[in-house]
Amino acid sequence: MRNENASRAATTAALMSAHPRATADPEARAAAATDRSGYVPATPPDVVVRCESAEDVVDALRLAHARGLPVVPRGAGTGLAAGASAHEGQVVVDVSRMNRILSIDPVEMIAVVEPGVLNADVNAAAAEHGLFYAPDPASTAICSIGGNIATNAGGMWCAKYGVTRESVLGLRVVLADGRVLRTGRTTIKGVTGYDLNALFIGSEGTLGIVIEATLRLRPRPVRTETLAAYFADVESAGRAASAITAARIQPSILELMDGPTLAAVDLAEGTRHRELGAAFLLAQTDGYGAHLELDEIARAVAPFAMSVHPAADDDEAAALVKARRDAIPSLEKLGRVSIGDIAVPRNRLADAFAGLEEISARTGVRIFSIAHAADGNLHPMIVVEPQESITEGPAKIALGEMFHLAQRLGGTLTGEHGVGLLKREWVAEELGEMSVELQRAIKAALDPAGILNPGKAI
Amino acid sequence: MRNENASRAATTAALMSAHPRATADPEARAAAATDRSGYVPATPPDVVVRCESAEDVVDALRLAHARGLPVVPRGAGTGLAAGASAHEGQVVVDVSRMNRILSIDPVEMIAVVEPGVLNADVNAAAAEHGLFYAPDPASTAICSIGGNIATNAGGMWCAKYGVTRESVLGLRVVLADGRVLRTGRTTIKGVTGYDLNALFIGSEGTLGIVIEATLRLRPRPVRTETLAAYFADVESAGRAASAITAARIQPSILELMDGPTLAAVDLAEGTRHRELGAAFLLAQTDGYGAHLELDEIARAVAPFAMSVHPAADDDEAAALVKARRDAIPSLEKLGRVSIGDIAVPRNRLADAFAGLEEISARTGVRIFSIAHAADGNLHPMIVVEPQESITEGPAKIALGEMFHLAQRLGGTLTGEHGVGLLKREWVAEELGEMSVELQRAIKAALDPAGILNPGKAI
Ligand SMILES: Cc1cc2nc3c(=O)[nH]c(=O)nc-3n(C[C@H](O)[C@H](O)[C@H](O)COP(=O)(O)OP(=O)(O)OC[C@H]3O[C@@H](n4cnc5c(N)ncnc54)[C@H](O)[C@@H]3O)c2cc1C
Ligand SMILES: Cc1cc2nc3c(=O)[nH]c(=O)nc-3n(C[C@H](O)[C@H](O)[C@H](O)COP(=O)(O)OP(=O)(O)OC[C@H]3O[C@@H](n4cnc5c(N)ncnc54)[C@H](O)[C@@H]3O)c2cc1C
Repeated sequence: MRNENASRAATTAALMSAHPRATADPEARAAAATDRSGYVPATPPDVVVRCESAEDVVDALRLAHARGLPVVPRGAGTGLAAGASAHEGQVVVDVSRMNRILSIDPVEMIAVVEPGVLNADVNAAAAEHGLFYAPDPASTAICSIGGNIATNAGGMWCAKYGVTRESVLGLRVVLADGRVLRTGRTTIKGVTGYDLNALFIGSEGTLGIVIEATLRLRPRPVRTETLAAYFADVESAGRAASAITAARIQPSILELMDGPTLAAVDLAEGTRHRELGAAFLLAQTDGYGAHLELDEIARAVAPFAMSVHPAADDDEAAALVKARRDAIPSLEKLGRVSIGDIAVPRNRLADAFAGLEEISARTGVRIFSIAHAADGNLHPMIVVEPQESITEGPAKIALGEMFHLAQRLGGTLTGEHGVGLLKREWVAEELGEMSVELQRAIKAALDPAGILNPGKAI
Repeated sequence: MRNENASRAATTAALMSAHPRATADPEARAAAATDRSGYVPATPPDVVVRCESAEDVVDALRLAHARGLPVVPRGAGTGLAAGASAHEGQVVVDVSRMNRILSIDPVEMIAVVEPGVLNADVNAAAAEHGLFYAPDPASTAICSIGGNIATNAGGMWCAKYGVTRESVLGLRVVLADGRVLRTGRTTIKGVTGYDLNALFIGSEGTLGIVIEATLRLRPRPVRTETLAAYFADVESAGRAASAITAARIQPSILELMDGPTLAAVDLAEGTRHRELGAAFLLAQTDGYGAHLELDEIARAVAPFAMSVHPAADDDEAAALVKARRDAIPSLEKLGRVSIGDIAVPRNRLADAFAGLEEISARTGVRIFSIAHAADGNLHPMIVVEPQESITEGPAKIALGEMFHLAQRLGGTLTGEHGVGLLKREWVAEELGEMSVELQRAIKAALDPAGILNPGKAI
């Protein structure tokens, strides 16, 4: 069996060897096998094509298509759903080296970029013109725009500015057979034809490979104000977040962390958040009336909070934002982490936290929770010992329970990380068989041979 | 021939007569033949099904599908692209009587509505809870939410809050064969599966009939400020609008009218705008810092303007907004109007106006122009004598020239009204053959028999 597999892999590699960027180097293959989900396939992919240009991607897909070889698109490999995971028999098309910012138009507030450029690099380039790119995953420094588009990534600023879909005006995409399609446009509005742009955004590499994106940038706010509030328990913090929504205030950031997560951050960073409460809410407002709007937030959360701390200056504000950004890295020091991603209606946040505590108690799995609270998007993080499995056993049972909790509260399986490989079994339950059937029909219309990221997303 | 047609029509009507809401009444058929585009087909549709419930729509599509009869979905019939136009051999499925607001959740800020409800009625109901529905076409009092969704309608507030797509969370849609599909969700975020919601939004009734929509409402701004500015010519006003964008200010409304339109409004309404200048810019800001942001707008437009008039109170502000809302009705008093809908990059507005003046001079067709200036979306309005054709001859030539002007400036054929029947011939030129081919493949995946709104949109 092992020999047979090895020779099949050699055949795939031989078939792709016509491509100047193809490599069957074992290290490259092992590195391209998975992402940051914690899932590792039993076997690595057969070959990795490290593309440096649009032509490289076109050639890779032409070759693969002619031979019916399955292709896994890969960006920076920071995904949390094993969307970029690849195993034996598969060809990885890695676009991380296509990482140029092709142009920035500061007047029109548009950037044209290659897919492999890191999210943070786009933001750094935009900042030179007083602009920013709104969808800012916590992984901004390590994830690529192509991966962001493929997962419709979100982040802190999405509370006010929407997710990736709201910031991508147009795409160039290589289809399964190597043809190049343009979607969207460079104007803000436009309704000619179906919204293929939105169809590709969030399609997790199953419909095409993004080789260029036209991004909408936004003016950096003239003024930003920040506060933190601490609570006796996470339900109170959830209620405070819902109270902000109910008070009709529009924070630009509204992030929540529970007590265990605060303790983990303190341990890793030497801070002392946990002493101040068993849950933490970070709120930011921006715009000409940011200070007035922040006062309203302080008023709305006060009845639920132990204490409220408006940041006195930029340094204090930065320290509060950093605490939130430190959450995942801090937990990763405690063990193996599986990052959940459910979303619920905004006024069900407290119920979601209560449900997660109950799941943790019942399954015996440790769950740490943070949330993009303004959008009702929770990241319950399961932490197991380094030697335990994160994709099987109790961790997997807890993941399934989280999904059912989200469903019960009128929510969804994944707010921003995607379905990938790891959440596929719940998709039909959420969407219904008919929706899945239609999605397959659309997939078949665009990729009749089914070579693009098979077994992922739908 | 006439007899043959008449008997074919009778056959269709007979086939649909099993439906309790079907009527072959000549008046009903004539009324359902077209919309507000000015286009009138040579023959009316054979039968109109006036649906009162989801079941009525399902039954209508089942009947039509079984017999292969082409179906034209119809809302309020205010469309400007003849998308709802129907001719002999076709069945109109009219959902305008399905006009209930099913629920409003003021805490979650969500409304669930039937498709036939008027845009203004949703806004009136939302206002009772201190909320509003952002996409507000100038036709708000007469157009339906289903039609808004089918065209991805825009309006004045879209400058800040985005178009229909940004305010529709979920849909219930009847597919061509009568099956009912749910798209989207009730949470703000979610990435399970492809974005079928966005696929249906703007699909102009070619993929399914919307029978229910879950709409995102927003808090009414705590504060709104308004100003008007007058200019010596429309290019100056265009430059002022681009200067606002370039100054990184986010108006909630930014509307432009040219001199001829101002004169038409004055004539119809007894106002005196044209005396103050040959172009008009209306700007509104909202939020906690609205007054501060309006000052910035005044500063940005001053170098281009003859005069700048901040509204002293709500009445003054309402009068300025009304002037803009009066534009189309005022022009309709001058003759037959064809309303264009091109969009260009935001800093090409002045070039677009110059180009329109040139087209008017060259073709001898009168063109009046207004624009959603913050989004670069222009409505050049061709006005001909009541007895002249609006869809043939010089008017049509001018329409084609407008489209090519938009293309030259990097823009698009239609910003918010849709392609319908009248703009189909330019679609392939804008999107490319391959994109059109893919769209047809998607259409075929959802409507294999091709019965839904054939010959429209793509
Ligand atoms: C510490 C940490 C924090 C995170 N925080 C967030 C967060 O706040 N919000 C959030 O949304 N996510 C977050 N993530 C998840 C992850 O960073 C995002 O999903 C990101 O968008 C993935 O980008 P990538 O370039 O790493 O994609 P990859 O992991 O390489 O791929 C992800 C998916 O996209 C596909 N893909 C990649 N590139 C392309 C392309 N060019 N064309 C077509 N398909 C492509 C892949 O096939 C795969 O299905 C976090 C991850 C980590 C490790
Ligand atoms: C004076 C005036 C001002 C206008 N201003 C604006 C403006 O500012 N912005 C703007 O975007 N538009 C504007 N319009 C155009 C028009 O009002 C919009 O296109 C509106 O969205 C059409 O809605 P309706 O209900 O009248 O649709 P209809 O005209 O009945 O139909 C329009 C299209 O939608 C389809 N459709 C209708 N209902 C459904 C349904 N339930 N399911 C599936 N498909 C359906 C039809 O088949 C057709 O293709 C204006 C029109 C007028 C007359």
